[in-house]
Amino acid sequence: MSSYKIAVIPGDGIGKEVIPEGIRVLEAAAASAGVKLSFTHFDWSCETYHQTGRMMPVDGLEQLRGFDAIFLGAVGFPGVPDHLSLWGLLLPIRRAFNQYVNLRPVRLFEGLQSPLANKKPGDIDFYVVRENVEGEYSAIGGIQYEGTDEEVVLQQSVFTRKGTDRILRYAFELAQSRDKKHLSSATKSNGLFHSMPYWDKRFADMAEDYPEVKTDQFHIDIFTANLVRMPEYYDVIVGSNLFGDILSDLGPACTGTIAIAPSANINPEKEFPSMFEPVHGSAPDIAGQNIANPLGTVWAAAMMMQHLGNQTMHDQIMAAMEAVIREGKALTRDMGGTASTQELGQALVDQI
Amino acid sequence: MSSYKIAVIPGDGIGKEVIPEGIRVLEAAAASAGVKLSFTHFDWSCETYHQTGRMMPVDGLEQLRGFDAIFLGAVGFPGVPDHLSLWGLLLPIRRAFNQYVNLRPVRLFEGLQSPLANKKPGDIDFYVVRENVEGEYSAIGGIQYEGTDEEVVLQQSVFTRKGTDRILRYAFELAQSRDKKHLSSATKSNGLFHSMPYWDKRFADMAEDYPEVKTDQFHIDIFTANLVRMPEYYDVIVGSNLFGDILSDLGPACTGTIAIAPSANINPEKEFPSMFEPVHGSAPDIAGQNIANPLGTVWAAAMMMQHLGNQTMHDQIMAAMEAVIREGKALTRDMGGTASTQELGQALVDQI
Ligand SMILES: CC(C)[C@H](C(=O)O)[C@@H](O)C(=O)O
Ligand SMILES: CC(C)[C@H](C(=O)O)[C@@H](O)C(=O)O
Repeated sequence: MSSYKIAVIPGDGIGKEVIPEGIRVLEAAAASAGVKLSFTHFDWSCETYHQTGRMMPVDGLEQLRGFDAIFLGAVGFPGVPDHLSLWGLLLPIRRAFNQYVNLRPVRLFEGLQSPLANKKPGDIDFYVVRENVEGEYSAIGGIQYEGTDEEVVLQQSVFTRKGTDRILRYAFELAQSRDKKHLSSATKSNGLFHSMPYWDKRFADMAEDYPEVKTDQFHIDIFTANLVRMPEYYDVIVGSNLFGDILSDLGPACTGTIAIAPSANINPEKEFPSMFEPVHGSAPDIAGQNIANPLGTVWAAAMMMQHLGNQTMHDQIMAAMEAVIREGKALTRDMGGTASTQELGQALVDQI
Repeated sequence: MSSYKIAVIPGDGIGKEVIPEGIRVLEAAAASAGVKLSFTHFDWSCETYHQTGRMMPVDGLEQLRGFDAIFLGAVGFPGVPDHLSLWGLLLPIRRAFNQYVNLRPVRLFEGLQSPLANKKPGDIDFYVVRENVEGEYSAIGGIQYEGTDEEVVLQQSVFTRKGTDRILRYAFELAQSRDKKHLSSATKSNGLFHSMPYWDKRFADMAEDYPEVKTDQFHIDIFTANLVRMPEYYDVIVGSNLFGDILSDLGPACTGTIAIAPSANINPEKEFPSMFEPVHGSAPDIAGQNIANPLGTVWAAAMMMQHLGNQTMHDQIMAAMEAVIREGKALTRDMGGTASTQELGQALVDQI
């Protein structure tokens, strides 16, 4: 009987409401698949920060290292500046465990209403492959002449050949494996003089290794416009840390609700645990009301099982999710229903 | 009789097709308003680059300095890397003439179909106020260990107190002058450790000077999602160079076509000429076919006359544009019609 040790970090806000539903669904699927899952909870969050001045203990990363995977809710809450909470918890995990691939599927499900006119299931079905450990997300930089009218703030982006090539390679391989074999790169080489021309060059060079893959590139401004105008055009999208972040929020918004979107922070070499979370944040505006949509977390749970090698559990969870959305009976408010977080979780468990 | 000297830079691709229509419309409006406009053409473009190795002459900026305004088409064409063409022509003008405000109205016109379901004229009506001379757009940085596996590329963003405060101030003043008095700031302070927390802090500080203005802020990822989910929520948006760029392409895409969107690069102090251009680029894919939509250029022309102090001509051009779109007879392909660039230009002239 295969068994997996999962570190669970519910985090802040609705993270604490959706993670229990993800676990219920995982347990139901595990029971039916004869898999043993053991969950270890870590209450690291902005509350921890208020008590201890840290988002996680000094040896937090060490505590996580031995797990098979990390299952995370959301990080960040009013009261702690976002750069302190995120650079204190989520971002260090991505980096310490070399989760350099952030894989985010975007799909319009049967039963959900796209805010785009005349889009039906099948019209939106792509992957965002996001670089996850370098690029624009950086704590390098600082402020000069602080507190005076002369303040200058520098913010450094860092792109390496190794970091750029490995994410592009992952995206090319994914595109190659798909029917459409179409890879679109997000750039902004007309404005960002060094980083993006470099990105474009590595993309063009690597394209030569994949003659079957159809490639194109779009500046990030027109890319966002295109996602709204013609989402059906895209198959696999590759972007830097920032551009991938943007496109993987906008994409799900075009499928009716960003709350269903999952985010897999993957260390493809499996030297370290990978981390699975919903794309959405802690949503302070609806936290505590028990109306948060747990489907992003549930889809992330499915991706976690796939990453751990259990395709059966992945497929079972996805089938349950598709069925429940199609039936439309236990949907949360953001999907046009009235169900609570738990009722939707229960509907998934019943389905499984 | 007021008279204005306009420098005209059609640039590349469809820039060369839409600018003549903008001029025809301006001339018609000027004739009816008793205004004298003199146009001086500069053929600076990627073709110039091929011939001379430069996008504009060494003294190009000097040549422009004495004009009342600059009327520009689009810059960039395959064959010249985008960072060379843009940093050789468009971006130096914005910087040399301290056009630190990039003002971009976004509006859904009666007669155009939004790609968003159930949006009608009035639902989308906001301004993007974009910082236009510093921030992420930077040529500071470079490459280390070039040509080896160890390549490291650095790209520096630069935010100053002066640059940040003056664009925020402009946005607050604009919001204050509008009915809704609502200003939304684009940020990404959870990922970009130095620049965006600084931006947020300046925004919060300045908000205290404008107690009547309702403020909020959104990380750029969820901001793009919100533009699709609830564009009616926004009134005035302020963003950095990059974030403003993104939101001002996505916004117009939600109004049916990005081709109608104008971009005013303003030096509010009027020490230098301001520059007016469409938001769209040179569109190599449709260049030379005479199907480009000149309305972004025409709207930019209207903004130019407003900036020069002639509100009458502005209103006249806008009224013509509204009427022609509403009638729907002379629309270009991107707006669902079959008219050529010239036919649409002619319809506007007839209307005036
Ligand atoms: C061409 C490019 C450099 C430019 C920009 O990003 O500023 C354009 O997209 C715009 O929005 O005016
Ligand atoms: C919370 C934030 C730092 C994070 C990111 O931008 O990476 C989130 O938006 C995401 O997409 O996972």
